[in-house]
Amino acid sequence: MSSESARSGKPRNRSDEKPLRLALLGCGTVGSEVIRLLHDQAGDLTARIGAPLEIVGVAVRRLGRARGDLPVDPDLFTTDALGLVKRDDVDVVVEVVGGIEPARTWLVEALRAGKSVITANKALLAEDGAALHDAAADGNADLYYEASVAGAIPLLRPLRESLHGDRVTRVTGIVNGTTNFILSSMDSTGAGFSEALEEATELGYAEADPTADVEGFDAAAKAAILASLAFHSRVTAADVFREGMTGVTAGDMASAKEMGCTIKLLCIAERGPDSAGHESVSVRVHPAMIPYSHPLAGVGDAFNAVFVEADAAGQLMFYGRGAGGTPTASAVLGDIVAAARNRLGGFRAPSESNYAHLPVRPIGEAVTRYHINLDVDDKPGVLAAVAGVFAKHEVSIATVRQSGREDDAKLVIVTHGAPDANLAATVESLSQLDIVRSIASVLRVEGGA
Amino acid sequence: MSSESARSGKPRNRSDEKPLRLALLGCGTVGSEVIRLLHDQAGDLTARIGAPLEIVGVAVRRLGRARGDLPVDPDLFTTDALGLVKRDDVDVVVEVVGGIEPARTWLVEALRAGKSVITANKALLAEDGAALHDAAADGNADLYYEASVAGAIPLLRPLRESLHGDRVTRVTGIVNGTTNFILSSMDSTGAGFSEALEEATELGYAEADPTADVEGFDAAAKAAILASLAFHSRVTAADVFREGMTGVTAGDMASAKEMGCTIKLLCIAERGPDSAGHESVSVRVHPAMIPYSHPLAGVGDAFNAVFVEADAAGQLMFYGRGAGGTPTASAVLGDIVAAARNRLGGFRAPSESNYAHLPVRPIGEAVTRYHINLDVDDKPGVLAAVAGVFAKHEVSIATVRQSGREDDAKLVIVTHGAPDANLAATVESLSQLDIVRSIASVLRVEGGA
Repeated sequence: MSSESARSGKPRNRSDEKPLRLALLGCGTVGSEVIRLLHDQAGDLTARIGAPLEIVGVAVRRLGRARGDLPVDPDLFTTDALGLVKRDDVDVVVEVVGGIEPARTWLVEALRAGKSVITANKALLAEDGAALHDAAADGNADLYYEASVAGAIPLLRPLRESLHGDRVTRVTGIVNGTTNFILSSMDSTGAGFSEALEEATELGYAEADPTADVEGFDAAAKAAILASLAFHSRVTAADVFREGMTGVTAGDMASAKEMGCTIKLLCIAERGPDSAGHESVSVRVHPAMIPYSHPLAGVGDAFNAVFVEADAAGQLMFYGRGAGGTPTASAVLGDIVAAARNRLGGFRAPSESNYAHLPVRPIGEAVTRYHINLDVDDKPGVLAAVAGVFAKHEVSIATVRQSGREDDAKLVIVTHGAPDANLAATVESLSQLDIVRSIASVLRVEGGA
Repeated sequence: MSSESARSGKPRNRSDEKPLRLALLGCGTVGSEVIRLLHDQAGDLTARIGAPLEIVGVAVRRLGRARGDLPVDPDLFTTDALGLVKRDDVDVVVEVVGGIEPARTWLVEALRAGKSVITANKALLAEDGAALHDAAADGNADLYYEASVAGAIPLLRPLRESLHGDRVTRVTGIVNGTTNFILSSMDSTGAGFSEALEEATELGYAEADPTADVEGFDAAAKAAILASLAFHSRVTAADVFREGMTGVTAGDMASAKEMGCTIKLLCIAERGPDSAGHESVSVRVHPAMIPYSHPLAGVGDAFNAVFVEADAAGQLMFYGRGAGGTPTASAVLGDIVAAARNRLGGFRAPSESNYAHLPVRPIGEAVTRYHINLDVDDKPGVLAAVAGVFAKHEVSIATVRQSGREDDAKLVIVTHGAPDANLAATVESLSQLDIVRSIASVLRVEGGA
């Protein structure tokens, strides 16, 4: 125990000083930071929990890598993660390895054995969260995963525990820092996607292979986790409609600005009736224009933010760092303290809430709005012909702007909300009109723009 | 149970169908909304908790007031709040009356008897939270008060439970919707305080007697609650330095804008060394200039937001509706579900964490920055004389702007951070200089402007 804890006296509510024993799976950026924080804040953590935390093993892929500066006994490193998880003297398992396997095997084993599990593994939770939740139920064990979405931002606990007296109707998030950095840079400098990506890579905001970020896979996994919590239903990554942001051009950003908007890669989860009128959820990730007046528009740099709408609470937003070793470790530590307190008190955290069993409706049934930029012939009757296509697909037009240039003209059309399938069919039909020379861009519009 | 719950089947984790019995103290704006939500969302709440909630009594000041449209049996109303609290068939007490007494007596009684208490009573928590926390410890009972600060925004649970693995260094909040509405209006329209207050009153954002809001009493109570949670120490309303915002003029707002800033009424709680180097906390409420680039600057209308800085998590912000019957009821409902789940599981929520016992340092020792607007004689040597006063009080000047007008001139000085006492002494000394004709305004500056 550090001197700080000694100075502040014995914790008030508990005198149990038997340590809680942690197994750490993974010792990369986040894992190292978890070790450092557990060491540096030992006194405070002991006072808050009522007992000290002790690392009893750290599973790594290869021994012998230089980890000399970490405040942990080097003898605790092992390459046998499964063996570590199975040890009787482990109370809490912290997984910061990522990926589906072997992480799933380790965590299922730990949970079934009644060990508390803290994981930052968004891919596993989004692909097969059911395996973990079921194992947690079998073992009557705690499963916490605050770090899996939006890094340091306390978001999942509020959704799980603060808003459970309310009815969440919509969650709109900027949950990928890399793409937000790129889009913020495109907005402020007028750069194109490639140029902005290059800058992000140089500054360490984008990985050498940025596919998971720019194609929206990372955001889709987080969308599935958020939708599951918000709507008390099981939603997996496969349920999420996903469109990346590599197609967003400098021209799109300029068009957005003309409308008083910026473009963000959004994850959107909402509940509402499907085409047959049954309550269902729609979960999607795609770039979209949002007005500058929307709180999400001001989320710059690599920050994350999640905007939540609920019947009684109204509009809420949670903002902070979505990635990075230290912010992610903050979320992991918060979960460790919660799990440790629960073990000492003989409690269990609220378990998975999936009673609502809401089905996921396809993207075609999601109500969206389109911003369509057309190059058309500049002759009488063009607007009538174009408007006729929208009418045929039962899409109502909100605004049209027309600007002539010699013999051709530009039409910028923003629709009212309509089923995405109708909007997509409208675009397809427009592309077949003779008078339409090209469809310069199509972007969805969110946030009441 | 509603048809929705019936449709979604039996809750997965619990089959205990014995209702949890609620006593509601108060039936005004928030209380009525709590009753309505408990009724409308009964099916969902039962599924989330594992047992139904049942209101067994509602204490009001006077019977006979028309409450006919509320979905609750009129026979449940009583004027005997203490009698209701003492009943053996009450599991959870929800207090939305406000004020110190008799609320304190009722809640202490309930907690000592082991009943779970949910309260929105910021004044009581800030003045004598110790009485409630001690009673909760005595009765081994849950005490939840999410609705007491920032209405619907899930803020206290994140501070209590998500960031307890981290070290919070600073909390900066806009926690009073009335004053934020007034200041946002002054910023956007150029109106003066009185005019903006009048508008706020007409629109229902300000009460007939706005003293508690505009003089910062409401914000100070919330600051005490936030500081206690953030720093694991007991901080009361009396510890909070408080300066209202009635002195903010249209001219101040114009000066702020020239600096790229707006003015907000902020509550600020931070930890740091006192003058003797001992770790302590500073808690204050006052108007301050913050740069438009700060996330809090964009919080308009009557919205609330709280900006949290922590060692590992970095910068976080929580945003939403801070007041109103329905948003406040959302927070109360969230606490009811948590308390109800705990009772069913035989758990107890994390109790008060005050192990750090950090002392509160006086405002004079808080490090702040000043923006000072002086009318001075326009003659050689004026700046040297003025700068000499700052140097004498060991206050470092960050920027000076001078603009001449015939025979007098205007000096706008922004300081670096210095102990507030030194800054106050500097202003006092300046007022005594012959060459200083008047001190047009003095405002603190926050947020790195």
